[in-house]
Amino acid sequence: MNPTEFQPTAFSAVPVGFKLPTLIDLTDPDLSQRLQARLDNKTKPVGSLGRLEALAVRLGLILGTLRPELHHPQMVVFAADHGLAAHGVSAYPSDVTWQMVSNFLAGGAAVSVLARQHGLALTVVDCGVRHDFPAHPQLQARKVAPGTQDMLQAMAMTPRQCAQALQHGMDLVRELPGNVLLLGEMGIGNTSAASLLLAQLTGRDLADCTGAGTGLTEAGLQAKLQVLRGVQQRHQKDLDAARASGLLKPEAWGGTGAGVVARHEAAALFTLASLGGLEVATMVGAVLQAAFERKVILVDGFIASAAVMAAAALRPQVLQRCVFAHRSSEHAHGLLLEHLKAEPLLDWGLRLGEGSGAALAWPLVASASRILIEMASFEDAGVSRQASGA
Amino acid sequence: MNPTEFQPTAFSAVPVGFKLPTLIDLTDPDLSQRLQARLDNKTKPVGSLGRLEALAVRLGLILGTLRPELHHPQMVVFAADHGLAAHGVSAYPSDVTWQMVSNFLAGGAAVSVLARQHGLALTVVDCGVRHDFPAHPQLQARKVAPGTQDMLQAMAMTPRQCAQALQHGMDLVRELPGNVLLLGEMGIGNTSAASLLLAQLTGRDLADCTGAGTGLTEAGLQAKLQVLRGVQQRHQKDLDAARASGLLKPEAWGGTGAGVVARHEAAALFTLASLGGLEVATMVGAVLQAAFERKVILVDGFIASAAVMAAAALRPQVLQRCVFAHRSSEHAHGLLLEHLKAEPLLDWGLRLGEGSGAALAWPLVASASRILIEMASFEDAGVSRQASGA
Repeated sequence: MNPTEFQPTAFSAVPVGFKLPTLIDLTDPDLSQRLQARLDNKTKPVGSLGRLEALAVRLGLILGTLRPELHHPQMVVFAADHGLAAHGVSAYPSDVTWQMVSNFLAGGAAVSVLARQHGLALTVVDCGVRHDFPAHPQLQARKVAPGTQDMLQAMAMTPRQCAQALQHGMDLVRELPGNVLLLGEMGIGNTSAASLLLAQLTGRDLADCTGAGTGLTEAGLQAKLQVLRGVQQRHQKDLDAARASGLLKPEAWGGTGAGVVARHEAAALFTLASLGGLEVATMVGAVLQAAFERKVILVDGFIASAAVMAAAALRPQVLQRCVFAHRSSEHAHGLLLEHLKAEPLLDWGLRLGEGSGAALAWPLVASASRILIEMASFEDAGVSRQASGA
Repeated sequence: MNPTEFQPTAFSAVPVGFKLPTLIDLTDPDLSQRLQARLDNKTKPVGSLGRLEALAVRLGLILGTLRPELHHPQMVVFAADHGLAAHGVSAYPSDVTWQMVSNFLAGGAAVSVLARQHGLALTVVDCGVRHDFPAHPQLQARKVAPGTQDMLQAMAMTPRQCAQALQHGMDLVRELPGNVLLLGEMGIGNTSAASLLLAQLTGRDLADCTGAGTGLTEAGLQAKLQVLRGVQQRHQKDLDAARASGLLKPEAWGGTGAGVVARHEAAALFTLASLGGLEVATMVGAVLQAAFERKVILVDGFIASAAVMAAAALRPQVLQRCVFAHRSSEHAHGLLLEHLKAEPLLDWGLRLGEGSGAALAWPLVASASRILIEMASFEDAGVSRQASGA
């Protein structure tokens, strides 16, 4: 098949029951004000807890309460392989994806260690790893395919595969307890997908959006950029073809029945299917469902943020539910965060992924919740207030 | 008494047994290298945990081991009053010092909440609060005086008081379990002491070193600066007088018997006694002892950092044992950190003190330890390494 030729049948094959959720707007000036007033009445100078206060207000708005208690935080690591990895876009071989999944489950990876430290439930989701795993209580089998297609040859996923992955993400979050979702991922080659999505969804030049990932040399980085430019060119042709055949219309994605009502939503799904990864698409579904349930979404690094960006292209209100854990040393992550107007909690030069940054930042989020709930007020503690005009 | 006239007798009254410790240099290129090699062999791309790795190396160097296990972390909040507070240098009345001490002990303050969250043992030290506290299991009575003298009139402490506070700090740390000391403080008026110490020890202009503290208005800040300039002028005369009477010599501070061997050490003690606070001097003693015992010292904000700076003026090696938790929104704290060449863990616009920033940052330090100890190596986990030249 000519890679730029689409099969309209693929578009009608969106799974039965697939439906993107509708998200309410959480803007609530009255609740914001009451949350800030509550903080201002705690035994501390007004504003003296800085960003911890802003974070506490955000938690209150997400959970819709003056007492945003966080419980059963869930670290979910979405894993999948990438066809593009065959072109050497990563410093590591594809086998590292399944090897690291095994390492997550065995408890030896960074995210395992940090999840254990903080009592985070850790679930690994096989969204499309090229490996057969034995059953494990912490492993969820949600494999859509053994990795994506080579994006130089075809869309990463067929629309049906993409919709399936989205559905998996929604389903698995629906079954998780707690009111906090921490996003992690593993997939050799997935910074390429994130870079392509960033370039496509923001219109930025691919060179700005591409970095060394897990540790490419300068020559390796240039080779990666070359490959990604090739993908981008192919994708442009795909887009033209899809536009011509009416495949960027909501109807192609199930239309209003699937909750896809606007042209830009269909286009965003097409972009995700073309340039994403199975773990990215599953994560997008998870983000949409978590946002629908008004869970706090703690976002890890570049790839998790790219998934949030893709989810926000479908439902901008997801951003109201997100807390960004850190700014990665992958330069493009900073651009992505800027695009989302997100100010991350940490700036520590992390570039590991896995959810390690989200796990690291988790106690800071928990602290914000506790400050709001547990600190005494001036009246409770019998502490004198600031002298007026001081 | 003329405030610029010194009584040499005060200098001979340094408490019997008072002795500043000798600190070994922890520079160890071999151990550093072995620590980094151990990190590089963990299942992650080399360097991909960014600052967490640098922090892990530091912990290893402080504890002198490849497995820096942290145990029984101790949050100690040093509290005292300040004579200068009578001049309106704070937005809050002096009574807030003892009221907040009660709040710490009752569990309602920010530091109480955060210490409880992280299982940190919390001790409050009455170094010189103008209040009589009932006994409490978490309160240590180490009161040297009910607050410092008004620095516009006299040295904040007599040398004997200062030495006593230092001794208290050393004694109390000696009795604490664990290998981590988290520094907190409470004292209405103590940003003034920190600003004066910063200006004196770095030669910077007082205006650069002075900020709004707990929340002064611009007019309040100008009035504070005016008061501090007055203190600085008086102190300059004190210094001249002390120099003339030979009171800046080690002998005046007990000499080698007390471990004060150099002129600059005697001068640093004189500065601390003149411009510090009882909680600051006690904290300096605590820092010196913790450094001697090779404990990890997690430093909170501006005042705790000023105490570390004063300790480093006596024993520069204390800095090798310190981790700076955050950069406060008090501008002068940034200058102080620069002076100490310290890169803090968080930049969250905190300005509360109490140890709240240190408590907030504690889990990040614990994470660094766990990464080094608990993460699997490539061999252990059967994970493929980076392709050479990739």
